[in-house]
Amino acid sequence: MAFGWIDEQAEQRRRAGLVRTLRPRPADSPLLDLASNDYLGLAHHPEVVEGAADAARTWGGGSTGSRLVTGTTELHAQLERELAEFCGFEAALVFSSGYAANLAAVTTLAPHGSLVVSDAGNHASLIDGCRLARGATQVVGHADPDGVRKALRTHDGQAVVVSDSVFSVDGDAAPVGALAQACREFGAGLLLDDAHGLGVLGDGGRGAPYAAGLAGSEDVVVTVTLSKSLGSQGGAVLGPARVIDHLVNAARTFIFDTGLAPAAAGAALAALTLLRREPERAARARAVASELHTRLTAAGLEAVRPDAAVVSVRAPSPEAAVQWAADCRTAGLAVGCFRPPSVPDGISRLRLTARADLSGAEIERAVRVIGETRP
Amino acid sequence: MAFGWIDEQAEQRRRAGLVRTLRPRPADSPLLDLASNDYLGLAHHPEVVEGAADAARTWGGGSTGSRLVTGTTELHAQLERELAEFCGFEAALVFSSGYAANLAAVTTLAPHGSLVVSDAGNHASLIDGCRLARGATQVVGHADPDGVRKALRTHDGQAVVVSDSVFSVDGDAAPVGALAQACREFGAGLLLDDAHGLGVLGDGGRGAPYAAGLAGSEDVVVTVTLSKSLGSQGGAVLGPARVIDHLVNAARTFIFDTGLAPAAAGAALAALTLLRREPERAARARAVASELHTRLTAAGLEAVRPDAAVVSVRAPSPEAAVQWAADCRTAGLAVGCFRPPSVPDGISRLRLTARADLSGAEIERAVRVIGETRP
Ligand SMILES: Cc1ncc(COP(=O)(O)O)c(C=O)c1O
Ligand SMILES: Cc1ncc(COP(=O)(O)O)c(C=O)c1O
Repeated sequence: MAFGWIDEQAEQRRRAGLVRTLRPRPADSPLLDLASNDYLGLAHHPEVVEGAADAARTWGGGSTGSRLVTGTTELHAQLERELAEFCGFEAALVFSSGYAANLAAVTTLAPHGSLVVSDAGNHASLIDGCRLARGATQVVGHADPDGVRKALRTHDGQAVVVSDSVFSVDGDAAPVGALAQACREFGAGLLLDDAHGLGVLGDGGRGAPYAAGLAGSEDVVVTVTLSKSLGSQGGAVLGPARVIDHLVNAARTFIFDTGLAPAAAGAALAALTLLRREPERAARARAVASELHTRLTAAGLEAVRPDAAVVSVRAPSPEAAVQWAADCRTAGLAVGCFRPPSVPDGISRLRLTARADLSGAEIERAVRVIGETRP
Repeated sequence: MAFGWIDEQAEQRRRAGLVRTLRPRPADSPLLDLASNDYLGLAHHPEVVEGAADAARTWGGGSTGSRLVTGTTELHAQLERELAEFCGFEAALVFSSGYAANLAAVTTLAPHGSLVVSDAGNHASLIDGCRLARGATQVVGHADPDGVRKALRTHDGQAVVVSDSVFSVDGDAAPVGALAQACREFGAGLLLDDAHGLGVLGDGGRGAPYAAGLAGSEDVVVTVTLSKSLGSQGGAVLGPARVIDHLVNAARTFIFDTGLAPAAAGAALAALTLLRREPERAARARAVASELHTRLTAAGLEAVRPDAAVVSVRAPSPEAAVQWAADCRTAGLAVGCFRPPSVPDGISRLRLTARADLSGAEIERAVRVIGETRP
């Protein structure tokens, strides 16, 4: 039996209490959601939903081909223009996922002979991008511009520094300005993954690079996802037109992947329009995060001060984290639970999402449940 | 300027005539489409489109999180059950793209110390999977079971043989039965990418593995896309439940990626329902391909005998292929044009899609235009 070896691994996972199982959710879940990445509460907004439905009607259920063959519609082009404009970059390129966008950006900006300097806390998709890239990778400490300088000093030639702008697990922001400064000193490029910054940070949700004054810089490339604040699916790379043209010609996850489904493009466009019209949503998400943090801390819990819309609460052990999240669920609250091996630092935690559309009563209820179920 | 080196590469591409540019298409394109992968003509089918729209309305514009957090809805679970059942496998797991499904399948089935035997004509996503996998890769000749045997003989331990079941560029089928036989002799697993087989080959479009009697085999894993015959977006891995559980626990493009958008899942489900109700669509796609091939050959063109719904027509040079495709377009016909560096064998060709819903008159028109514009 060719795949018999899998049973051994499964057994090891069982013994270690690390089995992951899928839990399909119903459409009318009674749970209060503090687990999703729907930071602005837009995934169910009528305009976003109708954006998806209208796009499917006009453009079909799928894009029917790779972007360079039949998979680019005028809707894709419009989404790219509006994303670039909103975030302050010259051009944008849309992918089927944020994961694919990250693979594309890292591999095409780190050719043979170049150096990639990668934060130890980076998202899996950036790490896989480093593995796929022809350049050499040096992993540096988390949020450590001096570590970045040290790495850049070892290399003569092209280099790119790669970092989440907001880290997905703890929700802490990267020292974006200091990273840009370090890059400038060495003539290196900067690639920021703003998956958790778009819609939350910067003026009206224009993202962390915008907030740091880096939007439109010729040495900065940004990736975003359409699957979090924009309530849809997909990803994009934003940057100078020369970089975007380069991606069109060289990025394998662009050239050899079917274009994003029209419904996803339509939903993201509708969300972007909403965000423009109601820029206060971004600030509201940050305020909810801050309130959650203040209240949890006041209740004696160890929570990381949020830089965006993610609030991370420490758990004493992986087992305790799992039990805690399960107890929250029993009490009607969905929270994220991160533990080894999917956390870079080995620390288990609850991960809470500060949705912009949480009411005061919901915040209160969430804090109460988390406090009452604490290990 | 950190990314100045890109200009040099762009200049090289310009000199070599290899610049790729996006051409956004309008919703009401007057072109006759023989370029997409919409093999069954389902992307615009009202039931598929309404499947997308209804799903967005019920489940939102996005799935809101990774599959193990909030990104698994009952719709995803239903799609997985129906895909597995349709194709004859024990279980299925849905991904945000076929590309992501292939990365997941190869990396998780080729752990450290194992061997991956990969066909030289495999799709980019399988190749990237090999690059990301911890196992060692041996590339063997195209469609060469004896080459596979030779490779397997060199290795002691776990091995998996990886192949497109229908190759994307030329549309030729892999010797699936012979590959399975070679795998059996060596106790190796077989991973088949049925992106271009699903919906076209096998009883009612159940795919190439089904046609070869391999569906449900404990040593066979299959990947499919939802973006071609099913007219949507997304991908899936099909196989024994143990393999699917393994993927849930170990596949990075599953664990760290947002779940497929509900609209895409809904569209694919609707297409699957249609395919069940109208199984003749698969045979019709094959018949159209065969007719295209017969007529093109009769017109003196060099076309590869189609094993599925792709008809590949040789061009004398990359430049001639590009000009030919452009001339077809001017005459109202969209065809695919593949040339180096995106063809593994260096041969430039037109790639025609035999959509099941092409009328006799459309086939005639396509053949006429291709003949009249030939280089
Ligand atoms: C930091 C970060 N980058 C990239 C991604 C991938 O984006 P997507 O899920 O849209 O593929 C995620 C989450 O999934 C993420 O948290
Ligand atoms: C053989 C093959 N496998 C996988 C893929 C990737 O699937 P998707 O485009 O749905 O990501 C494609 C085409 O895009 C393909 O042709």
